[in-house]
Amino acid sequence: MTIAYLGPAGTFTEAALRQVDPDGNDHLPASSVPAALAAVREGRASSAVVPIENSVEGGVSATLDAVATGPELRILAEMLVPIRFDLVALEDKPLTAIRAVSTHSHAWAQVRQWAEASIPQAEYIPASSTAAGALGLLGATAAPYDAAICAPNVSEAHPELVVLAENIGDNPEAVTRFVHLGGPDSALPGRTDADRTTLVIPLWEDRAGALMEILEQFATRGVNLSRIESRPTGNYLGDYFFSVDIDGHIEDERVAEALVGLRRICPTTRFLGSYARADHKPATVASHHTDGAFTQARDWVAGLRAQKS
Amino acid sequence: MTIAYLGPAGTFTEAALRQVDPDGNDHLPASSVPAALAAVREGRASSAVVPIENSVEGGVSATLDAVATGPELRILAEMLVPIRFDLVALEDKPLTAIRAVSTHSHAWAQVRQWAEASIPQAEYIPASSTAAGALGLLGATAAPYDAAICAPNVSEAHPELVVLAENIGDNPEAVTRFVHLGGPDSALPGRTDADRTTLVIPLWEDRAGALMEILEQFATRGVNLSRIESRPTGNYLGDYFFSVDIDGHIEDERVAEALVGLRRICPTTRFLGSYARADHKPATVASHHTDGAFTQARDWVAGLRAQKS
Amino acid sequence: MTIAYLGPAGTFTEAALRQVDPDGNDHLPASSVPAALAAVREGRASSAVVPIENSVEGGVSATLDAVATGPELRILAEMLVPIRFDLVALEDKPLTAIRAVSTHSHAWAQVRQWAEASIPQAEYIPASSTAAGALGLLGATAAPYDAAICAPNVSEAHPELVVLAENIGDNPEAVTRFVHLGGPDSALPGRTDADRTTLVIPLWEDRAGALMEILEQFATRGVNLSRIESRPTGNYLGDYFFSVDIDGHIEDERVAEALVGLRRICPTTRFLGSYARADHKPATVASHHTDGAFTQARDWVAGLRAQKS
Amino acid sequence: MTIAYLGPAGTFTEAALRQVDPDGNDHLPASSVPAALAAVREGRASSAVVPIENSVEGGVSATLDAVATGPELRILAEMLVPIRFDLVALEDKPLTAIRAVSTHSHAWAQVRQWAEASIPQAEYIPASSTAAGALGLLGATAAPYDAAICAPNVSEAHPELVVLAENIGDNPEAVTRFVHLGGPDSALPGRTDADRTTLVIPLWEDRAGALMEILEQFATRGVNLSRIESRPTGNYLGDYFFSVDIDGHIEDERVAEALVGLRRICPTTRFLGSYARADHKPATVASHHTDGAFTQARDWVAGLRAQKS
Repeated sequence: MTIAYLGPAGTFTEAALRQVDPDGNDHLPASSVPAALAAVREGRASSAVVPIENSVEGGVSATLDAVATGPELRILAEMLVPIRFDLVALEDKPLTAIRAVSTHSHAWAQVRQWAEASIPQAEYIPASSTAAGALGLLGATAAPYDAAICAPNVSEAHPELVVLAENIGDNPEAVTRFVHLGGPDSALPGRTDADRTTLVIPLWEDRAGALMEILEQFATRGVNLSRIESRPTGNYLGDYFFSVDIDGHIEDERVAEALVGLRRICPTTRFLGSYARADHKPATVASHHTDGAFTQARDWVAGLRAQKS
Repeated sequence: MTIAYLGPAGTFTEAALRQVDPDGNDHLPASSVPAALAAVREGRASSAVVPIENSVEGGVSATLDAVATGPELRILAEMLVPIRFDLVALEDKPLTAIRAVSTHSHAWAQVRQWAEASIPQAEYIPASSTAAGALGLLGATAAPYDAAICAPNVSEAHPELVVLAENIGDNPEAVTRFVHLGGPDSALPGRTDADRTTLVIPLWEDRAGALMEILEQFATRGVNLSRIESRPTGNYLGDYFFSVDIDGHIEDERVAEALVGLRRICPTTRFLGSYARADHKPATVASHHTDGAFTQARDWVAGLRAQKS
Repeated sequence: MTIAYLGPAGTFTEAALRQVDPDGNDHLPASSVPAALAAVREGRASSAVVPIENSVEGGVSATLDAVATGPELRILAEMLVPIRFDLVALEDKPLTAIRAVSTHSHAWAQVRQWAEASIPQAEYIPASSTAAGALGLLGATAAPYDAAICAPNVSEAHPELVVLAENIGDNPEAVTRFVHLGGPDSALPGRTDADRTTLVIPLWEDRAGALMEILEQFATRGVNLSRIESRPTGNYLGDYFFSVDIDGHIEDERVAEALVGLRRICPTTRFLGSYARADHKPATVASHHTDGAFTQARDWVAGLRAQKS
Repeated sequence: MTIAYLGPAGTFTEAALRQVDPDGNDHLPASSVPAALAAVREGRASSAVVPIENSVEGGVSATLDAVATGPELRILAEMLVPIRFDLVALEDKPLTAIRAVSTHSHAWAQVRQWAEASIPQAEYIPASSTAAGALGLLGATAAPYDAAICAPNVSEAHPELVVLAENIGDNPEAVTRFVHLGGPDSALPGRTDADRTTLVIPLWEDRAGALMEILEQFATRGVNLSRIESRPTGNYLGDYFFSVDIDGHIEDERVAEALVGLRRICPTTRFLGSYARADHKPATVASHHTDGAFTQARDWVAGLRAQKS
């Protein structure tokens, strides 16, 4: 059992991986989300952990795009990781002495206000990950920067890094949602009372009407959306697909019927999985959208159809 | 086999009855639509023929109301009868000599323009049916009128009636739709490529939103409405139910799923039957609303649900 | 000032007329709703009172149809009259002795259950109005019936009529709504906090989609419907218009904008008037549909449009 | 007149700036989109040019977020720039000899397939812009990479850079849309027959219903959406706003009324401008959504409202 993840070690993704795999199977760090998913698709890993959504930055485009095309994958679980950033260096020094600082561009976006107020003189040097920026300080050759912004677990693992400032994120409540993805034959996680289902829905024509038709498939069955994001297909300006999370499990009748409706009007709709919500928040379901309401109504119709001569 | 109908003999209803029963079972004329339906409900007749809709006067309230409550009935067939009115009397005379004319109030409404132009001097005397008005001229005691307006088959059957004016309806294209109703255990008529399904849908709350929710159950499955009429429940001003005809048969998947949806949001929805259209006009069904589209989409969802560990 | 009404004297319509004109202008009884409205349209009366809706029988087709076409009219007021039926005869006698009973067919429909239980032996003889049936008992020539069903004010006005049974309506809460109609140049009644607006909206195409589009014009402005009825245009089976009552006055911004939207999609939409509700029940209006919300939003858009170079 | 832009010189943004300002006012390169907009907001520049949408990567989050909050700005024009990437180095050499390559992470995402096929051995070194990566090769100190991926205008301006491979983007049709933004008091661009309007619409509650209500404001006025993107507010997972482009100009009546509706249900809706489309593609407007249809319908309502006594 090998689990790929968006590496290197020390990133928030590794923290998410530890939630889902505390016992420590083989872990395969990948240099990008597509690379992590390719490891699963090509059989070099049995599953993968990647970020899908950040409360500040929004959907992780690389993940949303990578799961929307190519061989299908299945979400097996989701994990929430609070996002905390520290400023580290090789030696203690005043913030005003920092000349250049490195981190991943997404992390930089999340500490920008702090940086403008606290280290306005520092030049920004992009890094390919938060861990890579910090580990660059420890390399054999001198890095072109003298500080880095990274997750706490990097400095915990590398005591030679000095923490100059803790918890410097502009939004201290920031959290990132990760998903554990398996191959298309993965077993469907069992239904709980607080599940989520993730879908990829291409927009097949004029936007306003088509999007309303999609939303009606959910609304007429009382299915609530907890996330909707548009992503370009890359074909031309204005060609979109939607990445959608809904409350409920495909074994819920209201969800199953909504999926039948979506698949009819949009035959390339993709199912990415039904799985337990990390926050265990149950869905609110009106009495006429429960499994019992579906069963009774179907029994009524079936009885009427059975009245053959 | 006794078939009840809205009598007496000589009405348009009898003409409709002859379409559905040319061989002549026992026919039981009833004095009102409720009386005809009561004969079926109480076992004195096996089925009944009553008018349901007129192209000029609209839905026949007595029928719409009588099938909406009480023991359930099933529509087995529909028949269209062109409506033609003649003016008859006991002797030939100029129209200006007519002092009083009798007919059913619905018939009177359909010849009013002709009457105002041609016999403005004539007093109107209501009759309980078009046939009763005409037959009153033939009675033992003198009728309080000297002319009547009735269907052609009355004067055909009674040569002593003289036709003073033919085809006097204000709308020469007028047509009435009749239904042949059986008991609740009647066999469901087989599916053709041009069927109709009739429903009774109570409005359970605030009108605008609830009516839109009902219409969406049809729209999301591509089910077209060919008739929608509101009727008061009689409880209080503003309490309604809807009488609805839709294109298609309950054996069509799109119709069946729409009925499941309606029954969920409105558990007292009543099914009055699926039956062949008298005009043989096939429904227009988009490719994503065909039985095949439903089957493929359901198979897809079923396959996903079957992926248990 | 002459006010036409659906006569003769002694009907429920006259009771409604007295509500709106207690001082007694000239009153012109008409033999039918179209005749009453023609009196206004042709200048023989300044206004007319006719029934529009009954809590048991539903919309009054003759009125709904007559105001939908022809020269425009304006509703100036509405009146509610409780419907109470009494059985009268020329002499006191047991109910079982009644051989034939006369009344208007609508009244007959509203006492049918009582009649079947109490006077099952009596033949029904239709009359052109409830008052006409009762007054027929008093005529010079013997009527072909020995009892009549009418409103209490007929027996009050004619002491020679004996009341054999009181308040025999099947639904003791039955009420009829009447409207007072003036010509198209009538002054618009002032806005109160509890108004109603009546419209005639033709359906211009396929029913389900077109009706939803109409309802959305109300829904997007928070305008509630208190009545919606379909009526055939008379052209062919399935060609309808809708008669609609909405909560609010044309001087309410939400109503005015909904009317603009309706008139755009349906240029033959007809406005029949805004007037105070007889029940004084105020409309419920969400904060974003108030006049203030419209004014603020329009001012915002106007400010943006004014930013010319 | 100083125009800020997302610098440095040599980026695609500078190419867009040249389209809108061929005569060359003062140009102020900024290190980030927020910095470019801050220059306008703080008065150091009169306007700014920034990217808003890429056909492959989607909306530019930094821009969408920066215009959604803070002091208001106005879009004055849009520009389309075809995206073409070249691989450059200091000397000619086989692709197999490249050890490390630098570019902006968005550019890297758009050449990834080419890179995996053509220079799989090369390490990726992120740069803060495509131009910065290329210019790093020319710096006084040796860069930690020996090739860069940049726009053609960089190598045109710096003949010492050798082009090793031309037009290496995975999608040769890729295009980026830029906007020219002024302060909130900028004059509204005049109406043409092919305009676009950009809005920021917060989602104020449960997603599915609220989004449908927003879309209905457009649909009931026949306003087409050409782009809709969701962006997190950053407050918590699942709190979104929508960035929307619609066809038409605020001076079009259908657009103005839709904005009134949006502003009512969502009082913090933000107007970012109406401006000519770069592709000059006119909007399709049904006859009942034209300015004339609005004017006629409003005149009708105004006439009805004017009928006071």
